[in-house]
Amino acid sequence: MTFLHRHLLGIEQLRPDDITALLDLAEEYVSLNRGGHKHSDVLAGLTQINMFFENSTRTQASFELAGKRLGADVMNMAMQASSVKKGETLIDTALTLNAMHPDLLVVRHPHSGAVDLLAQKVNCAVLNAGDGRHEHPTQALLDALTIRRAKGRLHRLSIAICGDIAHSRVARSNIILLGKMENRIKLIGPPTLMPSEIEHFGVEVYDDMNEGLKDVDVVMMLRLQKERMDGGFIPSEREYYHRYGLDAEKLAHAKDDAIVMHPGPMNRGVEIDGDIADDINRSVIQEQVEMGVAVRMAAMDLLARNHKAQTA
Amino acid sequence: MTFLHRHLLGIEQLRPDDITALLDLAEEYVSLNRGGHKHSDVLAGLTQINMFFENSTRTQASFELAGKRLGADVMNMAMQASSVKKGETLIDTALTLNAMHPDLLVVRHPHSGAVDLLAQKVNCAVLNAGDGRHEHPTQALLDALTIRRAKGRLHRLSIAICGDIAHSRVARSNIILLGKMENRIKLIGPPTLMPSEIEHFGVEVYDDMNEGLKDVDVVMMLRLQKERMDGGFIPSEREYYHRYGLDAEKLAHAKDDAIVMHPGPMNRGVEIDGDIADDINRSVIQEQVEMGVAVRMAAMDLLARNHKAQTA
Amino acid sequence: MTFLHRHLLGIEQLRPDDITALLDLAEEYVSLNRGGHKHSDVLAGLTQINMFFENSTRTQASFELAGKRLGADVMNMAMQASSVKKGETLIDTALTLNAMHPDLLVVRHPHSGAVDLLAQKVNCAVLNAGDGRHEHPTQALLDALTIRRAKGRLHRLSIAICGDIAHSRVARSNIILLGKMENRIKLIGPPTLMPSEIEHFGVEVYDDMNEGLKDVDVVMMLRLQKERMDGGFIPSEREYYHRYGLDAEKLAHAKDDAIVMHPGPMNRGVEIDGDIADDINRSVIQEQVEMGVAVRMAAMDLLARNHKAQTA
Repeated sequence: MTFLHRHLLGIEQLRPDDITALLDLAEEYVSLNRGGHKHSDVLAGLTQINMFFENSTRTQASFELAGKRLGADVMNMAMQASSVKKGETLIDTALTLNAMHPDLLVVRHPHSGAVDLLAQKVNCAVLNAGDGRHEHPTQALLDALTIRRAKGRLHRLSIAICGDIAHSRVARSNIILLGKMENRIKLIGPPTLMPSEIEHFGVEVYDDMNEGLKDVDVVMMLRLQKERMDGGFIPSEREYYHRYGLDAEKLAHAKDDAIVMHPGPMNRGVEIDGDIADDINRSVIQEQVEMGVAVRMAAMDLLARNHKAQTA
Repeated sequence: MTFLHRHLLGIEQLRPDDITALLDLAEEYVSLNRGGHKHSDVLAGLTQINMFFENSTRTQASFELAGKRLGADVMNMAMQASSVKKGETLIDTALTLNAMHPDLLVVRHPHSGAVDLLAQKVNCAVLNAGDGRHEHPTQALLDALTIRRAKGRLHRLSIAICGDIAHSRVARSNIILLGKMENRIKLIGPPTLMPSEIEHFGVEVYDDMNEGLKDVDVVMMLRLQKERMDGGFIPSEREYYHRYGLDAEKLAHAKDDAIVMHPGPMNRGVEIDGDIADDINRSVIQEQVEMGVAVRMAAMDLLARNHKAQTA
Repeated sequence: MTFLHRHLLGIEQLRPDDITALLDLAEEYVSLNRGGHKHSDVLAGLTQINMFFENSTRTQASFELAGKRLGADVMNMAMQASSVKKGETLIDTALTLNAMHPDLLVVRHPHSGAVDLLAQKVNCAVLNAGDGRHEHPTQALLDALTIRRAKGRLHRLSIAICGDIAHSRVARSNIILLGKMENRIKLIGPPTLMPSEIEHFGVEVYDDMNEGLKDVDVVMMLRLQKERMDGGFIPSEREYYHRYGLDAEKLAHAKDDAIVMHPGPMNRGVEIDGDIADDINRSVIQEQVEMGVAVRMAAMDLLARNHKAQTA
């Protein structure tokens, strides 16, 4: 096992071997979760705290189930209702939790970089569950596992990421991961929703879906993140769907066996046609959710092992 | 054991033998819960998800405790704060959770029929924890267990259900269950709070408490569901208590050993006199709560066994 | 072990021997929590319910972790969203939970005396997690453990409690505990934030920080509880910090090895200077949080043992 990190803060810090090792272990947890007895004692005696400063039922549930199935003592902190409101700083909150001796701290925060900052202050392993527009590493890993299972490999694929790239940490982590694995990445979306520093990533940029989707193996749709758009150009949903929503006509430009992905929750009829989302021959959207639990189990397992090895 | 259902969606689908089998097993869990070590491993390795689209501290707590005491990995989803708010459909939410491989999904939803719909979309066992004005099967089962323990039998009893029948899924599930077990059912309440299709159920209807309570073995009071009354006739609390609130005078018309029930939470002085609620010789209100945990343990145990048998 | 109480409602009811016994046991849990496997089965088979009628992320988390690490089935009740809103009385809510056969009930309530009242109605052990301005016994116990570890003893120390004494159950429980252990207690704060019946406690009262802090071994700062001040004199934060906020200059009057405490969450720059809070040679603020989990584990362990002994 080559994964020797203390935290999982972003895809940025991972080497291709780390990614492969983590996905290989996740495969074992896919089997566990599909079996009749989906519980192990890998994290027994350890404490996992989920600290979500931003609501995310789906991601929090995935981490919570992952920890419980591995036998950890799992605690959710509703940070919106917490001491933060009483004027406590993020660092004080982190130090307080740290003093309770968690082994794994899962953190989501609306500000980019907040999770990295927090990781410097605590003794335990920190897992970034999404920070601002920065990174969402477990999402990129679960997407990678889904692609690898569907396509048989995770390299030399042509992958389109479509929609609101600028506001999306999902897009950012995926671009980094898929780039490390030597895939061809095509970003498709309106120029106003494209990040300004995009040229650094070695990707192709398209404004036109039909052109961008040509011959791709994977179509990753993104959620239109209205709540993250502050003051910028917001297209009408109808106009957006017409130009950038994935429908059968646009999808026809992709390879015949191209898979369709979406990180959820979906806005049907806005960024994706409902029929395509439900097409079991194309859509792997539910498998993404399934892989999410497995990938998080693998990540927590590896981090706990590393921690044990370092303190032994 | 005759209980071979995949889901517990309503009393409607149960045969009398199913009900008896479930209550018999629940008796064993009553003993477990009263003992010094109230934990078993019947559901170890299984995942229970509680999805409450409507607040219900009491019912959710009962299901949560039931699952934890049986050794399941239990997760509560606060659906009010969830992806539903981000525009996701009920079905997408259900499919997302389904992809996490729960074994037991406990669902409360404000719309009648929503839980049935959801059950068609998922692979796991679904337990209806109350859907709109439709059914609340575990409430009817816990009431049945309470009656059977107090009266020594669950048939040929005369049972009054009093109050806001029209808005009550508790009443509806109880009417179906008690009817299947061949009891005499008397509904008492103002005509405006009586459902329109009531004649189909083979029950007697009374507008007068003294008349309706005559010689009954069981008095089931209902909560005045102000939050569910939309635009209809709302009696003043004082007037309601005067005519339909259970007090000593009205109760005197029932049998001397009649028991008093209420599904909680109670509005003391509105639908029931506080002294009667507290009378340990008549009131079995707290025993109902106790039976609730046991009945839910039995239901989840049976559904998990069936699922295992079907997939083995 | 001399601790033979049924509940932990306040420090008032404890004898010095009880306190010592509880702190001695807590030391064992400090070791457990610092080790690689922080889980035991001391409370296996028992049910702990946390009933917080007032938000407290930090205290609830501490109790929740304590119970989970001891192997209990732990359930949190969000009482703000509960039946209380539907008109149910506190006693009915308590009786409902009691009917679910919890073994340990942890309660926080905004009204002084509410927890004592509740304890009279239930069969299980009740732990007061803070009631109005009355008591917060586990806070005083964790403070005591922190002092004992830092100073090597818990008696004949000179201890200053500073700030908003009048609104603070933390101050009240600490004054009682430290008094029972024969320490010299100095209360420092503006006369408007000093309780009226203060002379009963055998303490010294100061309005001037420099004077009050003279030669103390321990400086306990309190949170400025703005949310608890109803209509009284509220000093400006700037003025408050100037006169009563702990800074290096004021702290210089204490003993050279005096420790600085704060129950959290802190208002940096209001009641305490940030640099002092972070000074690892003086501040034991994070150790207080750590001791909190250990003290709560000890308290629940002892109460569960007593309950078992009494019912055996």
